[in-house]
Amino acid sequence: MAQEQITLYTAKVCPYAQRTEIALAEAGAPFKRYEIDLGNKPEWYAPKVNRASKVPAIAYGGPDVAPENPSPESTKLAESLILVEFIGDLYPSSNILPADPVLRAKARFFVEIVSTKFSPNFMKFASGNPEGTHAALLTGVDAIQDILPDGAKYAVGDQYTIADIAFAPFWARLNLLVQKGIGAYKDEEGKSFLKALEDPKYAKFNGYVQRILARQSFKSTFHEVRPLLCR
Amino acid sequence: MAQEQITLYTAKVCPYAQRTEIALAEAGAPFKRYEIDLGNKPEWYAPKVNRASKVPAIAYGGPDVAPENPSPESTKLAESLILVEFIGDLYPSSNILPADPVLRAKARFFVEIVSTKFSPNFMKFASGNPEGTHAALLTGVDAIQDILPDGAKYAVGDQYTIADIAFAPFWARLNLLVQKGIGAYKDEEGKSFLKALEDPKYAKFNGYVQRILARQSFKSTFHEVRPLLCR
Repeated sequence: MAQEQITLYTAKVCPYAQRTEIALAEAGAPFKRYEIDLGNKPEWYAPKVNRASKVPAIAYGGPDVAPENPSPESTKLAESLILVEFIGDLYPSSNILPADPVLRAKARFFVEIVSTKFSPNFMKFASGNPEGTHAALLTGVDAIQDILPDGAKYAVGDQYTIADIAFAPFWARLNLLVQKGIGAYKDEEGKSFLKALEDPKYAKFNGYVQRILARQSFKSTFHEVRPLLCR
Repeated sequence: MAQEQITLYTAKVCPYAQRTEIALAEAGAPFKRYEIDLGNKPEWYAPKVNRASKVPAIAYGGPDVAPENPSPESTKLAESLILVEFIGDLYPSSNILPADPVLRAKARFFVEIVSTKFSPNFMKFASGNPEGTHAALLTGVDAIQDILPDGAKYAVGDQYTIADIAFAPFWARLNLLVQKGIGAYKDEEGKSFLKALEDPKYAKFNGYVQRILARQSFKSTFHEVRPLLCR
C-alpha cells in the first residue's frame, strides 16, 4: 500500500524517540528525520507539532513541506508507544505487531512491565534520585526475566515485536551509563548493578538483551551521545 | 471466526473491570463471568489467574472448566486496556478498534489522556486525597474536551471505540459520587465540581458524556454498587 509522507521529529539522545526510529527501520518506511535540540527547542515545535513539546512526534500525510514548516494539513501524532503501534498498523509486513491476538496482548503486557517496573527505576537511577538504587533496577530486571519465554529469541517468541522495541533503547542507555561510569548515580550503585547481573540466574535475561542490542534496526538508530533524559 | 472460550474475572465495583465488560458487550462475545469479591479474594486467584491479584483478567482458550478451577492450559491475560484491545483484535466486527491506523492512533492518544490527566485525579478525589480537588478534576475535563472532535458523537468520531470504553466507567463513577454526595472527598469540592460543569464552555464535553452513558453496552454493564476503588 502506498503510504502518505511521514516526518519524524526526534532526538538522538532520547530513548522514547529511538523506539519510533527502530519501528520505522523494521518497517523499511521512508521518512524525513528532523533532529530536535531538546536543550533549545524551535519555537514552532510546540504550537505546530506537539503541544506537549516532547519528542518523538510524527506529522503524517499532507503536502510535501520542509519539516521546519509543518503543514496544518498533516495529522500530528505523539507518544512513543502509540507511534510504534501506528507504524506497525501502517506496515503489517514489518511483523512488529504479531497477527495472533494472544501474542499481541502478550507483547503489550511486556511493554506494560517495561513502563511500570523498569523505565521509572532507570529514570530515577540515571538522574541520581536516591530511590534509583541498583536494587530498584534489579526489580525491573527480575520482572522482565520472569515473563521472558524460555528458549525464545525475543520478548514474546522468535519474532521481534513492539515489546523488544519498547525496551531496547532504555536498556542500551543504562548499559552505556554503567559501562562508562557516567551519569548522576552513585558510583557504587552502578558497580553493584553490574556485579549482580553476573549471577548465573540472569543468564536468560543476559542472552535476551544481547540479542536486542545486536538487532540491525537497533544499531542503526542508536547513537552514543551523552544519554540525557528527555522529557 | 470461531473463538476459544473466554472466562472473565471481574468485579461490579471496578471501573477498570467494566472496560472489559463493555468491550465484550460491543463484540457480542460469549463469555463466562466470574465475580471476584475484592475485599475477600479467593486464594486461588493470584497463583492461578493473575499474579498481580487485580481484576479484570481473562482466561482464554483451554478446556471448558469451572472458573473457580482455572486450567493451566488457558492463556491468562490482564490489564484492562490490553484486554479491551485484545477483544477488539478477536472481534474486528465490533469496530471498537478503528480500521484506519490514524484513527486508531487518535483513539490510543485519547486513552493516554484519560490515563494520565483524568483517572489519577479521579482516584485522588474519590479517596479523599487532599490533591484530589475539583480544580484537579477540571484539568482532566479540560484535557478531554480539548481533544474531542467538534460535531462528532464520540471520542474520535462517530464510531464508538476503545477511547470511549476507557473513559466511560470512570466518568460514571465520578458522576455517581458527586450526584449522591458519597465518597471520601470534601463536600464542597463535589459541589464546586458540579457547579463548574454547568458553565456553557463545557457544552461539548457534557454532550459527549451524556452519549457515552446512554450507550447500551455501558448501561448493561454498570452497577450502582458503592463505587469502591479497586486495585
